[in-house]
Amino acid sequence: MNAQSIRKLLLAVRRGKVSPDEAVERLRHLPFEDLGFAKVDHHRALRAGMPEVVFGEGKSPRQLAEIFARLARHGGNVLATRASEEQFAAVQKKVAQAEYRSLARAIVLRQDDTRYGKGKIAVLSAGTGDIPVAEEAVVTAAIMGNEVEHLYDVGVAGIHRLLAHRKALVEARVVIVCAGMEGALPSVVGGLVRVPVIAVPTSVGYGAAFQGLAALLGMLNSCASNVSVVNIDNGFGAGYVASMINRL
Amino acid sequence: MNAQSIRKLLLAVRRGKVSPDEAVERLRHLPFEDLGFAKVDHHRALRAGMPEVVFGEGKSPRQLAEIFARLARHGGNVLATRASEEQFAAVQKKVAQAEYRSLARAIVLRQDDTRYGKGKIAVLSAGTGDIPVAEEAVVTAAIMGNEVEHLYDVGVAGIHRLLAHRKALVEARVVIVCAGMEGALPSVVGGLVRVPVIAVPTSVGYGAAFQGLAALLGMLNSCASNVSVVNIDNGFGAGYVASMINRL
Amino acid sequence: MNAQSIRKLLLAVRRGKVSPDEAVERLRHLPFEDLGFAKVDHHRALRAGMPEVVFGEGKSPRQLAEIFARLARHGGNVLATRASEEQFAAVQKKVAQAEYRSLARAIVLRQDDTRYGKGKIAVLSAGTGDIPVAEEAVVTAAIMGNEVEHLYDVGVAGIHRLLAHRKALVEARVVIVCAGMEGALPSVVGGLVRVPVIAVPTSVGYGAAFQGLAALLGMLNSCASNVSVVNIDNGFGAGYVASMINRL
Amino acid sequence: MNAQSIRKLLLAVRRGKVSPDEAVERLRHLPFEDLGFAKVDHHRALRAGMPEVVFGEGKSPRQLAEIFARLARHGGNVLATRASEEQFAAVQKKVAQAEYRSLARAIVLRQDDTRYGKGKIAVLSAGTGDIPVAEEAVVTAAIMGNEVEHLYDVGVAGIHRLLAHRKALVEARVVIVCAGMEGALPSVVGGLVRVPVIAVPTSVGYGAAFQGLAALLGMLNSCASNVSVVNIDNGFGAGYVASMINRL
Amino acid sequence: MNAQSIRKLLLAVRRGKVSPDEAVERLRHLPFEDLGFAKVDHHRALRAGMPEVVFGEGKSPRQLAEIFARLARHGGNVLATRASEEQFAAVQKKVAQAEYRSLARAIVLRQDDTRYGKGKIAVLSAGTGDIPVAEEAVVTAAIMGNEVEHLYDVGVAGIHRLLAHRKALVEARVVIVCAGMEGALPSVVGGLVRVPVIAVPTSVGYGAAFQGLAALLGMLNSCASNVSVVNIDNGFGAGYVASMINRL
Amino acid sequence: MNAQSIRKLLLAVRRGKVSPDEAVERLRHLPFEDLGFAKVDHHRALRAGMPEVVFGEGKSPRQLAEIFARLARHGGNVLATRASEEQFAAVQKKVAQAEYRSLARAIVLRQDDTRYGKGKIAVLSAGTGDIPVAEEAVVTAAIMGNEVEHLYDVGVAGIHRLLAHRKALVEARVVIVCAGMEGALPSVVGGLVRVPVIAVPTSVGYGAAFQGLAALLGMLNSCASNVSVVNIDNGFGAGYVASMINRL
Amino acid sequence: MNAQSIRKLLLAVRRGKVSPDEAVERLRHLPFEDLGFAKVDHHRALRAGMPEVVFGEGKSPRQLAEIFARLARHGGNVLATRASEEQFAAVQKKVAQAEYRSLARAIVLRQDDTRYGKGKIAVLSAGTGDIPVAEEAVVTAAIMGNEVEHLYDVGVAGIHRLLAHRKALVEARVVIVCAGMEGALPSVVGGLVRVPVIAVPTSVGYGAAFQGLAALLGMLNSCASNVSVVNIDNGFGAGYVASMINRL
Amino acid sequence: MNAQSIRKLLLAVRRGKVSPDEAVERLRHLPFEDLGFAKVDHHRALRAGMPEVVFGEGKSPRQLAEIFARLARHGGNVLATRASEEQFAAVQKKVAQAEYRSLARAIVLRQDDTRYGKGKIAVLSAGTGDIPVAEEAVVTAAIMGNEVEHLYDVGVAGIHRLLAHRKALVEARVVIVCAGMEGALPSVVGGLVRVPVIAVPTSVGYGAAFQGLAALLGMLNSCASNVSVVNIDNGFGAGYVASMINRL
Repeated sequence: MNAQSIRKLLLAVRRGKVSPDEAVERLRHLPFEDLGFAKVDHHRALRAGMPEVVFGEGKSPRQLAEIFARLARHGGNVLATRASEEQFAAVQKKVAQAEYRSLARAIVLRQDDTRYGKGKIAVLSAGTGDIPVAEEAVVTAAIMGNEVEHLYDVGVAGIHRLLAHRKALVEARVVIVCAGMEGALPSVVGGLVRVPVIAVPTSVGYGAAFQGLAALLGMLNSCASNVSVVNIDNGFGAGYVASMINRL
Repeated sequence: MNAQSIRKLLLAVRRGKVSPDEAVERLRHLPFEDLGFAKVDHHRALRAGMPEVVFGEGKSPRQLAEIFARLARHGGNVLATRASEEQFAAVQKKVAQAEYRSLARAIVLRQDDTRYGKGKIAVLSAGTGDIPVAEEAVVTAAIMGNEVEHLYDVGVAGIHRLLAHRKALVEARVVIVCAGMEGALPSVVGGLVRVPVIAVPTSVGYGAAFQGLAALLGMLNSCASNVSVVNIDNGFGAGYVASMINRL
Repeated sequence: MNAQSIRKLLLAVRRGKVSPDEAVERLRHLPFEDLGFAKVDHHRALRAGMPEVVFGEGKSPRQLAEIFARLARHGGNVLATRASEEQFAAVQKKVAQAEYRSLARAIVLRQDDTRYGKGKIAVLSAGTGDIPVAEEAVVTAAIMGNEVEHLYDVGVAGIHRLLAHRKALVEARVVIVCAGMEGALPSVVGGLVRVPVIAVPTSVGYGAAFQGLAALLGMLNSCASNVSVVNIDNGFGAGYVASMINRL
Repeated sequence: MNAQSIRKLLLAVRRGKVSPDEAVERLRHLPFEDLGFAKVDHHRALRAGMPEVVFGEGKSPRQLAEIFARLARHGGNVLATRASEEQFAAVQKKVAQAEYRSLARAIVLRQDDTRYGKGKIAVLSAGTGDIPVAEEAVVTAAIMGNEVEHLYDVGVAGIHRLLAHRKALVEARVVIVCAGMEGALPSVVGGLVRVPVIAVPTSVGYGAAFQGLAALLGMLNSCASNVSVVNIDNGFGAGYVASMINRL
Repeated sequence: MNAQSIRKLLLAVRRGKVSPDEAVERLRHLPFEDLGFAKVDHHRALRAGMPEVVFGEGKSPRQLAEIFARLARHGGNVLATRASEEQFAAVQKKVAQAEYRSLARAIVLRQDDTRYGKGKIAVLSAGTGDIPVAEEAVVTAAIMGNEVEHLYDVGVAGIHRLLAHRKALVEARVVIVCAGMEGALPSVVGGLVRVPVIAVPTSVGYGAAFQGLAALLGMLNSCASNVSVVNIDNGFGAGYVASMINRL
Repeated sequence: MNAQSIRKLLLAVRRGKVSPDEAVERLRHLPFEDLGFAKVDHHRALRAGMPEVVFGEGKSPRQLAEIFARLARHGGNVLATRASEEQFAAVQKKVAQAEYRSLARAIVLRQDDTRYGKGKIAVLSAGTGDIPVAEEAVVTAAIMGNEVEHLYDVGVAGIHRLLAHRKALVEARVVIVCAGMEGALPSVVGGLVRVPVIAVPTSVGYGAAFQGLAALLGMLNSCASNVSVVNIDNGFGAGYVASMINRL
Repeated sequence: MNAQSIRKLLLAVRRGKVSPDEAVERLRHLPFEDLGFAKVDHHRALRAGMPEVVFGEGKSPRQLAEIFARLARHGGNVLATRASEEQFAAVQKKVAQAEYRSLARAIVLRQDDTRYGKGKIAVLSAGTGDIPVAEEAVVTAAIMGNEVEHLYDVGVAGIHRLLAHRKALVEARVVIVCAGMEGALPSVVGGLVRVPVIAVPTSVGYGAAFQGLAALLGMLNSCASNVSVVNIDNGFGAGYVASMINRL
Repeated sequence: MNAQSIRKLLLAVRRGKVSPDEAVERLRHLPFEDLGFAKVDHHRALRAGMPEVVFGEGKSPRQLAEIFARLARHGGNVLATRASEEQFAAVQKKVAQAEYRSLARAIVLRQDDTRYGKGKIAVLSAGTGDIPVAEEAVVTAAIMGNEVEHLYDVGVAGIHRLLAHRKALVEARVVIVCAGMEGALPSVVGGLVRVPVIAVPTSVGYGAAFQGLAALLGMLNSCASNVSVVNIDNGFGAGYVASMINRL
């Protein structure tokens, strides 16, 4: 029951075909989604530049291909994260324009090239092992219509390499920092810039890294006040949050 | 905007004083709580036998007394959990009929004596240290209109004491089991009865009991299939869930 | 030694063939299970609508098939959880009527179609990844003689989808909620219904989900008082507890 | 050695009083902070609307008062978090205009009333126990020059209360959500708004809440993609990050 | 209903006053504890040399005194662990012969001096901080009728001190080893003796000792095969287990 | 340098060929193992009934076969734990009499059939999944010269099955209890017997069983005082400790 | 039995008063500590510049004073860590020259001023909260005869402050880095110097700092290869290890 | 821009071709790495005896071979850790002189045989399972120009085996100790030597060893003051730190 239905009901009331009491009763049982927040959801279908996203891990190539193809029909950009080459092969058969970003383990379909972000998003990785997560953030931010610049292998044990990039850092409107092991990079970066820093702990490391727990705890306890954190290896989430910020 | 308001609006529509379009717009912005689930909430105020509950810990005696007195005016039963004698003294000045259950650390006000539960709820404690939590469950179930029987100090290391009470166990419609340390009692009880068992881990114990974690994990892994679990020391929750079941 | 044996002994006493002293001694050593609780156990074999259950994981197809076939001879319903297609193939050779529920990873044999549950059990899943666990609960509740309705993919980040189902929720006599990641759904559902909610944390998620620990802790700390919790991924346990409640 | 000093050195070079080689050597040893990033730091002193902040916990009233008074001389706003009334008494003797926000346990000195934030920041708390953390966020965002609106006690077990505030939510440019126990609120809010959500787990709860760990894990695993997280009870950090975003 | 009652019942059967069927029914409902294992429990009251034990922590002086006095009337030895001097003062008023062992924080009443243990029990502590736990083991083993020898401050970082005591070690029939911090001593001792070693982790240490967790994990992973472990700080349990072994 | 060497040195002293001072110096540097505890180690080679043991996991079949054959030459019993059938095939080629106990995953070589244990060791398992660990304990205790009786599938949720075996329990001199999931069985058994109970947590279970952690914590917190614990899945350790006790 | 005793025995052998066989036997039983490693321990008493150390926490002022006074008689330096002012007052009465270092919470007695360290030890703290731990390291290294330089409040969020001290860093022979919260400083410092870095996690922080666990894990996972770690808050250990290195 | 560039700039200033103001501006923007710490980094390329290191795990054979070959061109020693035989095969095709150390799972290229370490480094392993980690430390220390001695299988449960090696221990300038399970060896060794001990927890063990966590916690809590710790299984880090110390 949407606005048209409600209007119809009210016309019936006006015309005396439906009594006010009966109309109250009908309204009382109308589906929630036709009111209020439903608008938000309706707008969702229309929402500019928000990609359709599907999590690839654990889905069969066939399942993923079907979902991807269905989402592609909405006309917007589509992103499949944690996707394998095998899954991509299946997707490509159904959606020829889809591309595979192997570093990011992502399948992307670009149907909308509008630039939605107002400034530049910088994506940093501490080590080379963190690059897959960083690339997932890069791909996400890119498909959401942002200019993205990446700075890789700028970990804190070689602080001069990071400092050499200070110009790029200072120019960014939002900064994403991916780091495993001790996860120290967001704190250093947070102290160098005046914009929001999204920290992404990665599961890179071994032993007491505990699959990213060490990095996660480190980032949550950052002594830099402009740092907030997303889940371990959640490059997508970081790219998404950064995109939201960059549209403001 | 409630049913009356809506009816008024519809009457205005019928009378032609408000156009259907304008009415649609007004309805679109009417507060959520006036529709659908609001009924649930409305019923809440009228709901039979559900006590008003307040968590006492961390509140000043004065704060608690004020909240308690306000809730008492609704006319139903009132329960303050984790309440101290000092808090009770303050409450009693405002609500003379309130009583203090020291074992349960609870303040109760009984204004509705209806029996809502269909059968009997049995509350067991493994050791004497678990009694405060068990009593919280007893007090909660009692104030929600249930017949309650307690069986204390029937821990698994003296299995014959438990077995001696099998008649009481078999007669219960719901069983609550409170245990700290290794938290083994719910599994044994679960195997002896054919009704739902609500397990409450308590923080009784030291060292590797880790403030109830050992008991909690034990209960979650119970080999008896009729056991479900609430939070550590959450006697109130157990009493509440058991009451809900006993009303069915 | 059962009731018949005891009666025989007592007849021998009456006839003077056995002295009271000797009879005392014999009774003293009679097997525990012949008395008291043994009745419970005896009734177990006769118990109406309780399925025979076997945990499939870690068993060879042949082992599982043998156990399943043996249980099938009891004449009641049989359920094998966490079972693979390969295991099912072996079972089917021995028990032709057995069926495989692939979503639930369960093998079922239906020999008793009685409706034991008094009302309807609603089973919710927050995301699509939680469906296998939810289906295990559905299959369990169904084979235990309940009417079951499932509502899938109604996670809290799209609250309108959940609210759209409020009618189904309100009609349920018991609600099972399966959710991974942050495990927030049981709290929201608990606030919408007035019946017991069984929460099942799932191992869906990655990183700081810690194989279901995040969801488990969330559910144990639910701010809704009518929620109790079973083990991570324990759809069977939830279905079993809900069935017990629904028979009351 | 600042720009003036360098110019002096270069003038000396031009005048032939210092050889290029000697100048190279001197430059090589000049303090790092005189170059490049030092500008950032210099700007720090001048930075518009960034408050001076001091963490009160663990400092004696006298220590805090001295630090606060020193920071007050910079002419900007000053904020002391986790401060007691006793500490405030000491501060007030030295800085008469300082004010105490008891709910937030914060001491504030407002010397700059400029509005720096472009939109409104909404601060939500799930329960009443979360209010101190939420208030810390409110006070931080306010002193950093933002319009702030708070919505308290809108936890997920009473979803209609939250939904009733959807207008305020939709109007906010950044949303801060404070929740303890299961920490589910940010996911629900994240699904309702299209702006960045900063989630703050609080240590409210007991037992398996593990001093905020349950809420923290829940928020990190949020199924809403626009959520990022700060440390347990870190209302200040949330207010700070939100302010940074709101200035963009 | 005990043996006498059963005999009476059987005599009535013999005399024809009670029919066999009725007797079967009565027997079916006789209390569990009158049969079988009840003997164990009955023997418990008579059991030689087993002390009555009460856990002092968390009990008021008055409560403890009452329990202690009641247990003292059984005529055997009585032990109150984790007892304060204040609690002892209350006990002493009721039981004049009770003694306080301050190092062990234990109250003991010795009414039975029989030597029940066949050999000697050696109790070791790694550091001086572990002595309270070691003394609790000593007091427990002593009151259970064992010859006990203690060897304190023989931690692994001064291995020669331990080796100097090898004669005492080799002569012991059971060895108890109490250690905090890294908990390494049981492994070394286990390699030096050919008898069972009971390891007691203590909560001595700070930081990553995590209140005894480090020592506990170390002891559970001992590379010496003759080591078993009790709970953190559980000197009583170690003394009890060692006593049981020493009676064999 | 052994006793012969020392005697030679002393003869040289007596004959005046070596001065006392020089002899002191030589003695000072003689290898530790020739003195004191070395006797223990020497006795080790001679020690009656102690098997040679090797941990099979992680070793190649060839490596294990070589070690096993070497140990076999000592003439005593040999035990390889955590061994696969493939490893056994390699061992058997070198040591024809070796046998494989598949349930226990152990290879045994029996060259000494002496009965060293004084009484009987009972080995219990809670569920069928715990049997491999229980069998490892059985095999270990058997090869160390003990009479062993096993009681399997006597978990606490079917307490009558356990109680039916009370005679076997009461007759045992030492009891080993293997249990996964909630690990409750040792507490119940501990309350039924008057001898030492060695508890072995197993990694049986899923979800919040955390690979045996739940069972481990439960057992460490046992409310039965005669229980001590070994590492998760350490059936060997339990059999070894029980054997040591049974020889006393 | 020391060297003199052995010589006496050997003289008796030479003189024929003791047979070689008897001497062998006597030697076999002589205390371990008279041989071999005993020298190490003997040297301990003589060891140059190694302070006598006592852990103050948990000791009564009187106990600490007695221990301190006894150690002072050895003539070397004495250090009491984790000592309160009250404890110091008691110590000072017995050892007038003792001094209290309040920042480090240490009591020191300097009786040996020799410089044992070859180079300089630098001690860094990330924040002001870490200073007590850093000072404990400073006091320890100083009393062990090292030149010590401290650099405080040089945390990674203000990297320029750290870099401004690069000269002091480069000149140090060993570097100690104390940091709480995310514990990132050792990695940055490790990348800047070519000498061993001893990292000390501190318990500074709140929430997900988990009393120093976050910093500890961070440091163990440092991406700088020259970093090793001591226990949380263990400034003494760091100072001790650094001193040992600086003597090489 | 290096020293030559700066000199050129200054010459231009002297010659009046560049104004001092313009020179200041240019200097202000010169890359960080050309100044100050850049020297360190520059020296890095020249640094004597520091090997080029690459972490092999997770890299394809081809990737590793390419990186290895590139590093080999620097003329110094090259070390690839955690490398498989398959990776080595690929490396060897490009760098014929590379060798594989299978026990250490390391590929080494020795192009510089200088002895940089002043003394001997001793590497101990507690069990045979710890040898791979110990060998990684040995290989690392060796390629960094140190004399290395290894002592394997000297765990604490056979203390005499360790003591038999006391000469080798006492002669070492730095000691590395690798141990899994309870991780007790570093404490015993720390008490026997007067030099720094680097402890390496290994992931050897099962159950409550928790992949090296038990050993890690044990080592962090060592009662020997000369022990510092590196990450679980980090033989490389231990060898690196020891080498740094041994060069002092």
